Amino acid sequence: MHRIGFVGLGAMGSLMAKNLLAKGFAVAGYDVRPEAGAALVAAGGEAAATPADAAAGADALVLMVVNSAQAEAVLFEAGALAALPPGSCVVLMATCPPGAVRAVAEKVEASGRKFVDAPVSGGTAGAGAATLTIMAAAPPAVFASVRPILAALGDKIFHVGERPGQGATVKTVNQLLCGVHIAVLAESFALAEKAGVDLELLLEIMSGSSASSWMLKDRGPRMLQDEPEVSSAVDIFVKDLGLVLEAGRDLKTALPLAAGAHQMFLAASGADHGRADDSQVIRSYRALNGRKT
Amino acid sequence: MHRIGFVGLGAMGSLMAKNLLAKGFAVAGYDVRPEAGAALVAAGGEAAATPADAAAGADALVLMVVNSAQAEAVLFEAGALAALPPGSCVVLMATCPPGAVRAVAEKVEASGRKFVDAPVSGGTAGAGAATLTIMAAAPPAVFASVRPILAALGDKIFHVGERPGQGATVKTVNQLLCGVHIAVLAESFALAEKAGVDLELLLEIMSGSSASSWMLKDRGPRMLQDEPEVSSAVDIFVKDLGLVLEAGRDLKTALPLAAGAHQMFLAASGADHGRADDSQVIRSYRALNGRKT
Repeated sequence: MHRIGFVGLGAMGSLMAKNLLAKGFAVAGYDVRPEAGAALVAAGGEAAATPADAAAGADALVLMVVNSAQAEAVLFEAGALAALPPGSCVVLMATCPPGAVRAVAEKVEASGRKFVDAPVSGGTAGAGAATLTIMAAAPPAVFASVRPILAALGDKIFHVGERPGQGATVKTVNQLLCGVHIAVLAESFALAEKAGVDLELLLEIMSGSSASSWMLKDRGPRMLQDEPEVSSAVDIFVKDLGLVLEAGRDLKTALPLAAGAHQMFLAASGADHGRADDSQVIRSYRALNGRKT
Repeated sequence: MHRIGFVGLGAMGSLMAKNLLAKGFAVAGYDVRPEAGAALVAAGGEAAATPADAAAGADALVLMVVNSAQAEAVLFEAGALAALPPGSCVVLMATCPPGAVRAVAEKVEASGRKFVDAPVSGGTAGAGAATLTIMAAAPPAVFASVRPILAALGDKIFHVGERPGQGATVKTVNQLLCGVHIAVLAESFALAEKAGVDLELLLEIMSGSSASSWMLKDRGPRMLQDEPEVSSAVDIFVKDLGLVLEAGRDLKTALPLAAGAHQMFLAASGADHGRADDSQVIRSYRALNGRKT
Protein backbone atom coordinates (compact mmCIF):
# COMPACT_ATOMS: atom_id res chain seq x y z
CA MET A 1 0.00 0.00 0.00
CA HIS A 2 1.37 3.35 -0.99
CA ARG A 3 -1.38 5.82 -1.76
CA ILE A 4 -3.53 6.96 1.16
CA GLY A 5 -6.72 9.00 1.13
CA PHE A 6 -7.09 10.86 4.43
CA VAL A 7 -10.30 12.54 5.53
CA GLY A 8 -10.33 14.68 8.66
CA LEU A 9 -7.28 16.95 9.00
CA GLY A 10 -8.09 18.31 12.43
CA ALA A 11 -5.86 18.71 15.48
CA MET A 12 -4.79 15.06 15.38
CA GLY A 13 -5.51 14.15 11.73
CA SER A 14 -3.26 16.87 10.31
CA LEU A 15 -0.31 15.55 12.37
CA MET A 16 -1.07 11.94 11.43
CA ALA A 17 -1.22 12.78 7.71
CA LYS A 18 2.17 14.47 7.99
CA ASN A 19 3.62 11.37 9.65
CA LEU A 20 2.37 9.26 6.72
CA LEU A 21 4.11 11.67 4.33
CA ALA A 22 7.27 11.47 6.39
CA LYS A 23 7.24 7.67 6.05
CA GLY A 24 7.00 7.91 2.25
CA PHE A 25 3.28 7.43 1.70
CA ALA A 26 1.51 9.55 -0.91
CA VAL A 27 -1.35 11.29 0.90
CA ALA A 28 -4.39 13.00 -0.61
CA GLY A 29 -6.15 14.75 2.23
CA TYR A 30 -9.58 16.31 2.62
CA ASP A 31 -11.01 18.51 5.31
CA VAL A 32 -14.01 20.82 5.42
CA ARG A 33 -11.63 23.64 6.29
CA PRO A 34 -9.68 24.51 3.11
CA GLU A 35 -6.71 25.83 5.13
CA ALA A 36 -6.14 22.31 6.44
CA GLY A 37 -5.67 21.09 2.87
CA ALA A 38 -3.24 23.92 2.19
CA ALA A 39 -1.15 22.95 5.21
CA LEU A 40 -0.99 19.38 3.94
CA VAL A 41 0.23 20.62 0.54
CA ALA A 42 2.93 22.63 2.30
CA ALA A 43 4.05 19.37 3.96
CA GLY A 44 4.31 17.58 0.61
CA GLY A 45 0.82 16.11 0.30
CA GLU A 46 -2.07 16.69 -2.00
CA ALA A 47 -5.27 18.58 -1.15
CA ALA A 48 -8.37 16.75 -2.34
CA ALA A 49 -11.36 18.89 -3.27
CA THR A 50 -13.88 16.35 -1.99
CA PRO A 51 -13.84 13.16 0.11
CA ALA A 52 -14.39 11.21 -3.11
CA ASP A 53 -11.29 12.82 -4.65
CA ALA A 54 -9.28 11.76 -1.61
CA ALA A 55 -10.53 8.17 -2.01
CA ALA A 56 -10.04 7.90 -5.76
CA GLY A 57 -7.12 5.62 -6.57
CA ALA A 58 -6.21 5.11 -2.90
CA ASP A 59 -4.99 1.81 -1.46
CA ALA A 60 -6.52 2.78 1.85
CA LEU A 61 -8.86 5.50 3.03
CA VAL A 62 -8.12 6.68 6.56
CA LEU A 63 -10.99 8.39 8.38
CA MET A 64 -10.02 10.65 11.29
CA VAL A 65 -13.31 12.50 11.43
CA VAL A 66 -15.18 13.64 14.56
CA ASN A 67 -17.72 10.86 14.92
CA SER A 68 -19.55 7.98 13.23
CA ALA A 69 -22.12 10.30 11.65
CA GLN A 70 -19.32 12.09 9.80
CA ALA A 71 -17.78 8.77 8.80
CA GLU A 72 -21.10 7.67 7.34
CA ALA A 73 -21.57 10.99 5.55
CA VAL A 74 -18.09 10.80 4.02
CA LEU A 75 -18.43 7.19 2.91
CA PHE A 76 -22.05 6.89 1.87
CA GLU A 77 -23.23 10.43 1.06
CA ALA A 78 -20.13 12.26 -0.18
CA GLY A 79 -19.23 9.29 -2.39
CA ALA A 80 -15.89 8.30 -0.89
CA LEU A 81 -16.76 4.60 -0.71
CA ALA A 82 -17.87 4.49 -4.34
CA ALA A 83 -14.67 6.31 -5.40
CA LEU A 84 -12.43 3.93 -3.44
CA PRO A 85 -11.08 1.14 -5.68
CA PRO A 86 -12.66 -2.28 -4.96
CA GLY A 87 -10.37 -4.33 -2.74
CA SER A 88 -9.02 -1.22 -1.06
CA CYS A 89 -9.42 -0.71 2.63
CA VAL A 90 -11.32 1.73 4.85
CA VAL A 91 -9.44 2.42 8.10
CA LEU A 92 -11.79 4.04 10.61
CA MET A 93 -9.64 5.71 13.28
CA ALA A 94 -12.21 8.10 14.74
CA THR A 95 -13.70 7.34 18.16
CA CYS A 96 -17.13 5.82 17.46
CA PRO A 97 -19.61 3.66 19.38
CA PRO A 98 -18.96 -0.06 18.84
CA GLY A 99 -22.46 -0.56 17.42
CA ALA A 100 -22.04 2.21 14.84
CA VAL A 101 -18.68 0.77 13.79
CA ARG A 102 -20.29 -2.61 13.16
CA ALA A 103 -22.98 -0.99 11.00
CA VAL A 104 -20.44 0.97 8.92
CA ALA A 105 -18.25 -2.11 8.50
CA GLU A 106 -21.16 -4.14 7.21
CA LYS A 107 -21.92 -1.65 4.43
CA VAL A 108 -18.23 -1.22 3.50
CA GLU A 109 -17.63 -4.96 3.28
CA ALA A 110 -20.86 -5.49 1.32
CA SER A 111 -19.46 -3.08 -1.30
CA GLY A 112 -16.36 -5.23 -1.82
CA ARG A 113 -13.95 -3.07 0.18
CA LYS A 114 -12.14 -4.13 3.33
CA PHE A 115 -12.59 -2.56 6.75
CA VAL A 116 -10.35 -1.97 9.76
CA ASP A 117 -11.76 -0.71 13.06
CA ALA A 118 -8.71 1.15 14.41
CA PRO A 119 -9.33 3.85 16.99
CA VAL A 120 -6.37 5.58 18.57
CA SER A 121 -5.29 6.96 21.91
CA GLY A 122 -2.55 9.43 22.73
CA GLY A 123 -3.96 12.81 21.76
CA THR A 124 -2.19 15.47 19.77
CA ALA A 125 1.10 14.71 21.52
CA GLY A 126 0.96 11.07 20.39
CA ALA A 127 -0.30 12.05 16.95
CA GLY A 128 2.61 14.46 16.49
CA ALA A 129 5.31 12.10 17.75
CA ALA A 130 3.85 9.05 15.96
CA THR A 131 3.51 7.36 19.34
CA LEU A 132 -0.22 6.70 19.27
CA THR A 133 -1.71 3.60 20.77
CA ILE A 134 -3.81 1.90 18.04
CA MET A 135 -6.45 -0.69 18.92
CA ALA A 136 -7.22 -2.48 15.67
CA ALA A 137 -9.86 -5.11 14.93
CA ALA A 138 -9.91 -6.82 11.53
CA PRO A 139 -9.34 -10.26 10.00
CA PRO A 140 -5.61 -11.12 10.35
CA ALA A 141 -4.78 -10.68 6.64
CA VAL A 142 -6.49 -7.30 6.48
CA PHE A 143 -4.75 -6.21 9.68
CA ALA A 144 -1.39 -7.27 8.21
CA SER A 145 -2.02 -5.30 5.02
CA VAL A 146 -2.57 -2.02 6.89
CA ARG A 147 0.07 -2.55 9.55
CA PRO A 148 2.65 -0.33 7.75
CA ILE A 149 0.14 2.51 7.80
CA LEU A 150 -0.58 2.03 11.49
CA ALA A 151 3.13 1.75 12.26
CA ALA A 152 3.68 5.17 10.67
CA LEU A 153 1.19 6.67 13.11
CA GLY A 154 1.78 4.88 16.37
CA ASP A 155 4.29 2.75 18.23
CA LYS A 156 1.87 0.61 20.25
CA ILE A 157 -0.15 -1.32 17.67
CA PHE A 158 -2.54 -3.93 19.11
CA HIS A 159 -4.60 -6.45 17.20
CA VAL A 160 -7.49 -6.68 19.65
CA GLY A 161 -9.86 -8.88 17.67
CA GLU A 162 -11.14 -9.94 14.26
CA ARG A 163 -14.61 -8.40 14.44
CA PRO A 164 -15.38 -4.72 13.76
CA GLY A 165 -16.48 -2.99 16.96
CA GLN A 166 -13.90 -4.71 19.15
CA GLY A 167 -11.37 -1.93 18.54
CA ALA A 168 -14.05 0.61 19.37
CA THR A 169 -14.89 -1.27 22.57
CA VAL A 170 -11.29 -1.16 23.75
CA LYS A 171 -11.13 2.53 22.92
CA THR A 172 -14.37 3.03 24.83
CA VAL A 173 -12.88 1.38 27.90
CA ASN A 174 -9.78 3.55 27.46
CA GLN A 175 -11.92 6.70 27.40
CA LEU A 176 -13.86 5.55 30.44
CA LEU A 177 -10.62 5.44 32.42
CA CYS A 178 -9.25 8.68 30.91
CA GLY A 179 -12.43 10.65 31.53
CA VAL A 180 -12.84 9.48 35.10
CA HIS A 181 -9.14 10.03 35.83
CA ILE A 182 -9.41 13.68 34.72
CA ALA A 183 -12.64 14.28 36.63
CA VAL A 184 -11.38 12.66 39.84
CA LEU A 185 -8.21 14.73 39.66
CA ALA A 186 -10.40 17.83 39.49
CA GLU A 187 -12.42 16.47 42.41
CA SER A 188 -9.27 15.99 44.49
CA PHE A 189 -7.89 19.44 43.61
CA ALA A 190 -11.24 21.02 44.46
CA LEU A 191 -11.09 19.41 47.89
CA ALA A 192 -7.46 20.42 48.41
CA GLU A 193 -7.99 24.03 47.45
CA LYS A 194 -10.91 24.29 49.86
CA ALA A 195 -8.48 23.09 52.53
CA GLY A 196 -5.90 25.69 51.52
CA VAL A 197 -3.31 23.19 50.32
CA ASP A 198 -0.70 24.38 47.81
CA LEU A 199 -1.84 22.67 44.60
CA GLU A 200 1.55 22.88 42.88
CA LEU A 201 3.17 20.99 45.72
CA LEU A 202 0.23 18.57 45.86
CA LEU A 203 0.69 17.79 42.18
CA GLU A 204 4.39 17.15 42.74
CA ILE A 205 3.64 14.76 45.61
CA MET A 206 0.88 12.88 43.76
CA SER A 207 3.04 12.54 40.65
CA GLY A 208 5.40 10.35 42.64
CA SER A 209 2.87 8.47 44.76
CA SER A 210 0.38 5.64 44.35
CA ALA A 211 -2.18 8.31 43.40
CA SER A 212 -0.42 8.95 40.10
CA SER A 213 -1.93 8.49 36.67
CA TRP A 214 -0.99 9.35 33.10
CA MET A 215 -3.76 11.96 33.18
CA LEU A 216 -2.57 13.42 36.47
CA LYS A 217 0.85 14.10 34.99
CA ASP A 218 -0.54 15.37 31.68
CA ARG A 219 -3.62 17.35 32.73
CA GLY A 220 -2.52 18.26 36.26
CA PRO A 221 -0.30 21.21 35.31
CA ARG A 222 -3.00 22.65 33.02
CA MET A 223 -5.66 22.15 35.69
CA LEU A 224 -3.70 24.60 37.87
CA GLN A 225 -3.95 27.31 35.21
CA ASP A 226 -7.07 29.44 34.86
CA GLU A 227 -6.90 29.72 31.07
CA PRO A 228 -4.64 26.91 29.85
CA GLU A 229 -3.83 26.17 26.25
CA VAL A 230 -6.44 23.77 24.85
CA SER A 231 -4.96 20.35 24.24
CA SER A 232 -8.28 18.52 24.12
CA ALA A 233 -11.59 20.23 24.84
CA VAL A 234 -14.19 19.59 27.54
CA ASP A 235 -16.70 18.80 24.78
CA ILE A 236 -14.55 15.89 23.56
CA PHE A 237 -15.17 14.14 26.88
CA VAL A 238 -18.83 15.14 26.84
CA LYS A 239 -18.91 13.13 23.61
CA ASP A 240 -16.53 10.32 24.59
CA LEU A 241 -18.06 9.59 27.99
CA GLY A 242 -21.41 9.74 26.18
CA LEU A 243 -20.11 6.94 23.94
CA VAL A 244 -18.97 5.04 27.01
CA LEU A 245 -22.44 5.25 28.52
CA GLU A 246 -23.97 4.26 25.17
CA ALA A 247 -21.76 1.15 25.15
CA GLY A 248 -22.88 0.48 28.72
CA ARG A 249 -26.53 0.73 27.68
CA ASP A 250 -25.95 -1.58 24.69
CA LEU A 251 -24.36 -4.15 27.01
CA LYS A 252 -26.74 -3.51 29.91
CA THR A 253 -23.86 -2.55 32.18
CA ALA A 254 -24.18 0.11 34.87
CA LEU A 255 -21.16 2.44 34.96
CA PRO A 256 -21.68 4.66 38.02
CA LEU A 257 -18.29 6.40 38.03
CA ALA A 258 -18.35 7.08 34.28
CA ALA A 259 -21.89 8.44 34.62
CA GLY A 260 -20.80 10.73 37.46
CA ALA A 261 -17.78 12.00 35.54
CA HIS A 262 -19.93 12.59 32.44
CA GLN A 263 -22.22 14.83 34.45
CA MET A 264 -19.29 16.99 35.53
CA PHE A 265 -18.02 17.44 31.94
CA LEU A 266 -21.59 18.10 30.82
CA ALA A 267 -22.04 20.77 33.50
CA ALA A 268 -18.76 22.42 32.43
CA SER A 269 -20.00 22.49 28.85
CA GLY A 270 -23.38 23.85 29.96
CA ALA A 271 -21.58 26.66 31.79
CA ASP A 272 -20.04 27.62 28.45
CA HIS A 273 -16.65 25.99 29.03
CA GLY A 274 -17.10 23.32 26.34
CA ARG A 275 -14.23 24.63 24.24
CA ALA A 276 -11.89 25.05 27.20
CA ASP A 277 -9.16 22.51 27.88
CA ASP A 278 -10.68 19.37 29.42
CA SER A 279 -8.67 20.02 32.59
CA GLN A 280 -11.18 22.82 33.17
CA VAL A 281 -13.79 20.29 34.26
CA ILE A 282 -12.48 21.57 37.61
CA ARG A 283 -14.72 24.59 36.99
CA SER A 284 -17.73 22.31 37.51
CA TYR A 285 -16.41 21.35 40.91
CA ARG A 286 -15.77 24.99 41.79
CA ALA A 287 -19.30 25.91 40.68
CA LEU A 288 -20.67 23.02 42.73
CA ASN A 289 -18.66 23.61 45.87
CA GLY A 290 -17.50 27.18 45.80
CA ARG A 291 -13.87 28.09 45.35
CA LYS A 292 -11.82 29.20 48.30
CA THR A 293 -10.84 32.80 47.68
CA MET B 1 16.23 16.45 69.35
CA HIS B 2 17.54 13.18 70.52
CA ARG B 3 15.06 11.33 72.69
CA ILE B 4 11.89 10.08 71.00
CA GLY B 5 8.75 8.61 72.50
CA PHE B 6 7.02 6.34 70.00
CA VAL B 7 3.47 5.03 70.44
CA GLY B 8 2.06 2.45 68.02
CA LEU B 9 4.57 -0.31 67.18
CA GLY B 10 2.41 -2.08 64.58
CA ALA B 11 3.28 -3.32 61.09
CA MET B 12 4.65 0.07 60.07
CA GLY B 13 5.42 1.67 63.43
CA SER B 14 7.79 -1.11 64.56
CA LEU B 15 9.86 -0.64 61.39
CA MET B 16 9.86 3.13 61.75
CA ALA B 17 11.02 2.96 65.39
CA LYS B 18 13.92 0.71 64.34
CA ASN B 19 14.93 3.21 61.66
CA LEU B 20 15.05 5.94 64.32
CA LEU B 21 17.32 3.73 66.46
CA ALA B 22 19.53 3.08 63.45
CA LYS B 23 19.98 6.83 62.96
CA GLY B 24 21.13 7.27 66.55
CA PHE B 25 17.95 8.44 68.25
CA ALA B 26 17.07 7.10 71.70
CA VAL B 27 13.59 5.58 71.40
CA ALA B 28 11.17 4.66 74.18
CA GLY B 29 8.34 2.78 72.55
CA TYR B 30 4.87 1.76 73.69
CA ASP B 31 2.32 -0.59 72.17
CA VAL B 32 -0.72 -2.35 73.59
CA ARG B 33 0.94 -5.63 72.59
CA PRO B 34 3.86 -6.23 75.04
CA GLU B 35 5.75 -8.35 72.48
CA ALA B 36 6.11 -5.24 70.30
CA GLY B 37 7.96 -3.53 73.14
CA ALA B 38 10.20 -6.55 73.58
CA ALA B 39 11.12 -6.47 69.88
CA LEU B 40 12.07 -2.80 70.24
CA VAL B 41 14.32 -3.62 73.20
CA ALA B 42 16.01 -6.30 71.11
CA ALA B 43 16.72 -3.62 68.50
CA GLY B 44 18.36 -1.36 71.09
CA GLY B 45 15.37 0.68 72.24
CA GLU B 46 13.49 0.97 75.47
CA ALA B 47 10.03 -0.51 76.18
CA ALA B 48 7.77 1.97 77.93
CA ALA B 49 5.14 0.53 80.29
CA THR B 50 2.58 3.21 79.42
CA PRO B 51 2.14 5.96 76.80
CA ALA B 52 3.00 8.46 79.53
CA ASP B 53 6.28 6.65 80.22
CA ALA B 54 7.12 6.84 76.51
CA ALA B 55 6.46 10.59 76.53
CA ALA B 56 8.31 11.38 79.77
CA GLY B 57 11.52 13.27 79.03
CA ALA B 58 11.06 13.00 75.25
CA ASP B 59 11.99 15.76 72.81
CA ALA B 60 9.29 14.48 70.47
CA LEU B 61 6.41 12.03 70.77
CA VAL B 62 5.67 10.18 67.53
CA LEU B 63 2.17 8.67 67.20
CA MET B 64 1.78 5.86 64.65
CA VAL B 65 -1.53 4.57 66.00
CA VAL B 66 -4.50 3.26 63.98
CA ASN B 67 -6.73 6.32 63.95
CA SER B 68 -7.49 9.68 65.54
CA ALA B 69 -9.52 8.12 68.38
CA GLN B 70 -6.42 6.20 69.48
CA ALA B 71 -4.29 9.34 69.18
CA GLU B 72 -6.72 11.20 71.44
CA ALA B 73 -6.82 8.34 73.95
CA VAL B 74 -3.01 8.22 74.11
CA LEU B 75 -2.56 11.95 74.51
CA PHE B 76 -5.50 13.00 76.64
CA GLU B 77 -6.65 9.89 78.51
CA ALA B 78 -3.47 7.85 79.00
CA GLY B 79 -1.57 10.97 80.09
CA ALA B 80 1.08 11.13 77.38
CA LEU B 81 0.56 14.83 76.74
CA ALA B 82 0.85 15.72 80.43
CA ALA B 83 4.03 13.63 80.69
CA LEU B 84 5.63 15.23 77.63
CA PRO B 85 7.95 18.09 78.64
CA PRO B 86 6.58 21.56 77.80
CA GLY B 87 8.09 22.81 74.51
CA SER B 88 8.41 19.26 73.17
CA CYS B 89 6.65 18.20 70.02
CA VAL B 90 3.83 15.76 69.15
CA VAL B 91 4.29 14.25 65.67
CA LEU B 92 1.03 12.63 64.51
CA MET B 93 1.83 10.23 61.64
CA ALA B 94 -1.34 8.10 61.63
CA THR B 95 -3.91 8.57 58.85
CA CYS B 96 -6.63 10.75 60.41
CA PRO B 97 -9.39 13.04 59.15
CA PRO B 98 -8.14 16.64 58.79
CA GLY B 99 -10.79 17.95 61.18
CA ALA B 100 -9.76 15.51 63.89
CA VAL B 101 -6.12 16.50 63.41
CA ARG B 102 -7.00 20.16 63.87
CA ALA B 103 -8.89 19.37 67.07
CA VAL B 104 -5.98 17.36 68.49
CA ALA B 105 -3.49 20.05 67.47
CA GLU B 106 -5.48 22.73 69.23
CA LYS B 107 -5.43 20.87 72.54
CA VAL B 108 -1.74 20.00 72.20
CA GLU B 109 -0.74 23.58 71.43
CA ALA B 110 -2.96 24.97 74.20
CA SER B 111 -0.93 22.81 76.61
CA GLY B 112 2.33 24.49 75.57
CA ARG B 113 3.61 21.65 73.37
CA LYS B 114 4.24 21.86 69.62
CA PHE B 115 2.41 19.82 66.98
CA VAL B 116 3.32 18.38 63.57
CA ASP B 117 0.67 16.84 61.31
CA ALA B 118 2.74 14.31 59.35
CA PRO B 119 0.89 11.39 57.74
CA VAL B 120 2.84 8.98 55.56
CA SER B 121 2.38 7.00 52.37
CA GLY B 122 4.37 3.98 51.22
CA GLY B 123 3.12 1.07 53.33
CA THR B 124 5.28 -1.43 55.17
CA ALA B 125 7.73 -1.54 52.25
CA GLY B 126 8.39 2.20 52.59
CA ALA B 127 8.44 1.99 56.39
CA GLY B 128 11.08 -0.76 56.33
CA ALA B 129 13.32 0.88 53.75
CA ALA B 130 12.94 4.38 55.24
CA THR B 131 11.53 5.52 51.90
CA LEU B 132 8.17 6.79 53.11
CA THR B 133 6.53 9.83 51.58
CA ILE B 134 5.82 12.21 54.48
CA MET B 135 3.34 15.06 54.11
CA ALA B 136 4.05 17.41 56.99
CA ALA B 137 2.22 20.53 58.08
CA ALA B 138 3.62 22.74 60.84
CA PRO B 139 5.03 26.24 61.32
CA PRO B 140 8.42 26.42 59.55
CA ALA B 141 10.53 26.46 62.73
CA VAL B 142 8.66 23.46 64.15
CA PHE B 143 8.97 21.60 60.85
CA ALA B 144 12.72 22.33 60.79
CA SER B 145 13.12 21.01 64.34
CA VAL B 146 11.57 17.61 63.50
CA ARG B 147 13.07 17.27 60.02
CA PRO B 148 15.89 14.98 61.24
CA ILE B 149 13.26 12.63 62.67
CA LEU B 150 11.25 12.63 59.42
CA ALA B 151 14.42 12.16 57.35
CA ALA B 152 15.19 9.00 59.34
CA LEU B 153 11.81 7.57 58.29
CA GLY B 154 11.31 8.65 54.70
CA ASP B 155 13.10 10.03 51.67
CA LYS B 156 10.32 12.18 50.23
CA ILE B 157 9.67 14.79 52.90
CA PHE B 158 7.22 17.52 51.91
CA HIS B 159 6.35 20.61 53.93
CA VAL B 160 2.79 20.99 52.68
CA GLY B 161 1.59 23.82 54.87
CA GLU B 162 1.80 25.60 58.19
CA ARG B 163 -1.58 24.66 59.61
CA PRO B 164 -2.44 21.31 61.26
CA GLY B 165 -4.83 19.30 59.06
CA GLN B 166 -3.09 20.25 55.82
CA GLY B 167 -0.86 17.16 55.96
CA ALA B 168 -3.92 15.02 56.65
CA THR B 169 -5.69 16.70 53.74
CA VAL B 170 -2.90 15.81 51.33
CA LYS B 171 -2.98 12.21 52.54
CA THR B 172 -6.78 12.26 52.17
CA VAL B 173 -6.50 13.54 48.60
CA ASN B 174 -3.99 10.78 47.89
CA GLN B 175 -6.44 8.15 49.13
CA LEU B 176 -9.30 9.74 47.18
CA LEU B 177 -7.36 9.27 43.95
CA CYS B 178 -6.16 5.77 44.87
CA GLY B 179 -9.62 4.51 45.80
CA VAL B 180 -11.36 5.92 42.74
CA HIS B 181 -8.58 4.65 40.47
CA ILE B 182 -9.09 1.10 41.75
CA ALA B 183 -12.88 1.26 41.50
CA VAL B 184 -12.93 2.75 38.00
CA LEU B 185 -10.51 0.07 36.83
CA ALA B 186 -12.99 -2.51 38.07
CA GLU B 187 -15.79 -0.64 36.30
CA SER B 188 -13.88 -0.66 33.01
CA PHE B 189 -13.00 -4.37 33.30
CA ALA B 190 -16.65 -5.17 34.08
CA LEU B 191 -17.69 -3.41 30.86
CA ALA B 192 -14.96 -5.05 28.80
CA GLU B 193 -15.75 -8.54 30.00
CA LYS B 194 -19.41 -8.05 29.12
CA ALA B 195 -18.22 -7.08 25.59
CA GLY B 196 -16.07 -10.21 25.31
CA VAL B 197 -12.75 -8.32 25.20
CA ASP B 198 -9.63 -10.22 26.30
CA LEU B 199 -8.87 -8.63 29.70
CA GLU B 200 -5.18 -9.63 29.72
CA LEU B 201 -4.63 -7.85 26.40
CA LEU B 202 -6.76 -4.94 27.57
CA LEU B 203 -4.59 -4.55 30.68
CA GLU B 204 -1.46 -4.60 28.54
CA ILE B 205 -2.87 -1.90 26.26
CA MET B 206 -4.10 0.31 29.10
CA SER B 207 -0.76 0.01 30.92
CA GLY B 208 0.88 1.87 28.04
CA SER B 209 -1.89 4.28 27.15
CA SER B 210 -3.30 7.52 28.50
CA ALA B 211 -5.65 5.33 30.59
CA SER B 212 -2.77 4.17 32.76
CA SER B 213 -2.40 4.76 36.46
CA TRP B 214 -0.14 3.53 39.24
CA MET B 215 -3.12 1.55 40.55
CA LEU B 216 -3.90 0.04 37.13
CA LYS B 217 -0.38 -1.38 36.96
CA ASP B 218 -0.37 -2.51 40.58
CA ARG B 219 -3.94 -3.78 41.10
CA GLY B 220 -4.78 -4.69 37.47
CA PRO B 221 -3.03 -8.09 37.44
CA ARG B 222 -4.64 -9.08 40.76
CA MET B 223 -8.05 -7.90 39.54
CA LEU B 224 -7.87 -10.56 36.82
CA GLN B 225 -7.42 -13.29 39.42
CA ASP B 226 -10.39 -14.76 41.26
CA GLU B 227 -8.59 -15.26 44.58
CA PRO B 228 -5.50 -13.03 44.55
CA GLU B 229 -3.04 -12.66 47.39
CA VAL B 230 -4.15 -9.84 49.70
CA SER B 231 -1.88 -6.83 49.42
CA SER B 232 -4.32 -4.35 50.96
CA ALA B 233 -7.88 -5.29 51.87
CA VAL B 234 -11.23 -3.98 50.60
CA ASP B 235 -12.01 -2.81 54.15
CA ILE B 236 -8.99 -0.48 54.16
CA PHE B 237 -10.64 1.52 51.38
CA VAL B 238 -14.01 1.30 53.09
CA LYS B 239 -12.22 3.14 55.92
CA ASP B 240 -10.01 5.46 53.85
CA LEU B 241 -12.72 6.61 51.42
CA GLY B 242 -14.86 7.10 54.52
CA LEU B 243 -12.19 9.52 55.81
CA VAL B 244 -12.18 11.22 52.41
CA LEU B 245 -15.93 11.78 52.59
CA GLU B 246 -15.62 12.99 56.16
CA ALA B 247 -13.06 15.57 55.00
CA GLY B 248 -15.50 16.58 52.27
CA ARG B 249 -18.27 17.04 54.82
CA ASP B 250 -16.00 19.11 57.09
CA LEU B 251 -15.08 21.39 54.18
CA LYS B 252 -18.59 21.36 52.68
CA THR B 253 -17.24 19.88 49.45
CA ALA B 254 -19.24 17.42 47.36
CA LEU B 255 -17.11 14.51 46.13
CA PRO B 256 -19.40 12.58 43.77
CA LEU B 257 -16.80 10.18 42.37
CA ALA B 258 -15.30 9.37 45.77
CA ALA B 259 -18.82 8.79 47.10
CA GLY B 260 -19.62 6.43 44.22
CA ALA B 261 -16.38 4.51 44.65
CA HIS B 262 -16.98 4.24 48.39
CA GLN B 263 -20.36 2.62 47.74
CA MET B 264 -18.72 -0.05 45.58
CA PHE B 265 -16.11 -0.90 48.25
CA LEU B 266 -18.85 -0.86 50.87
CA ALA B 267 -20.99 -3.25 48.82
CA ALA B 268 -18.00 -5.58 48.39
CA SER B 269 -17.49 -5.55 52.15
CA GLY B 270 -21.21 -6.14 52.73
CA ALA B 271 -21.04 -9.17 50.43
CA ASP B 272 -18.41 -10.58 52.78
CA HIS B 273 -15.37 -9.67 50.66
CA GLY B 274 -14.02 -7.08 53.14
CA ARG B 275 -10.85 -9.06 53.81
CA ALA B 276 -10.23 -9.84 50.14
CA ASP B 277 -7.62 -7.90 48.16
CA ASP B 278 -8.99 -4.45 47.30
CA SER B 279 -8.82 -5.34 43.59
CA GLN B 280 -11.83 -7.53 44.32
CA VAL B 281 -14.08 -4.47 44.39
CA ILE B 282 -14.72 -5.81 40.87
CA ARG B 283 -17.01 -8.35 42.56
CA SER B 284 -19.39 -5.47 43.34
CA TYR B 285 -19.59 -4.64 39.63
CA ARG B 286 -20.18 -8.26 38.73
CA ALA B 287 -22.92 -8.49 41.33
CA LEU B 288 -24.46 -5.29 39.98
CA ASN B 289 -24.23 -6.11 36.28
CA GLY B 290 -23.95 -9.83 35.95
CA ARG B 291 -20.77 -11.45 34.78
CA LYS B 292 -20.50 -12.73 31.23
CA THR B 293 -20.25 -16.50 31.44
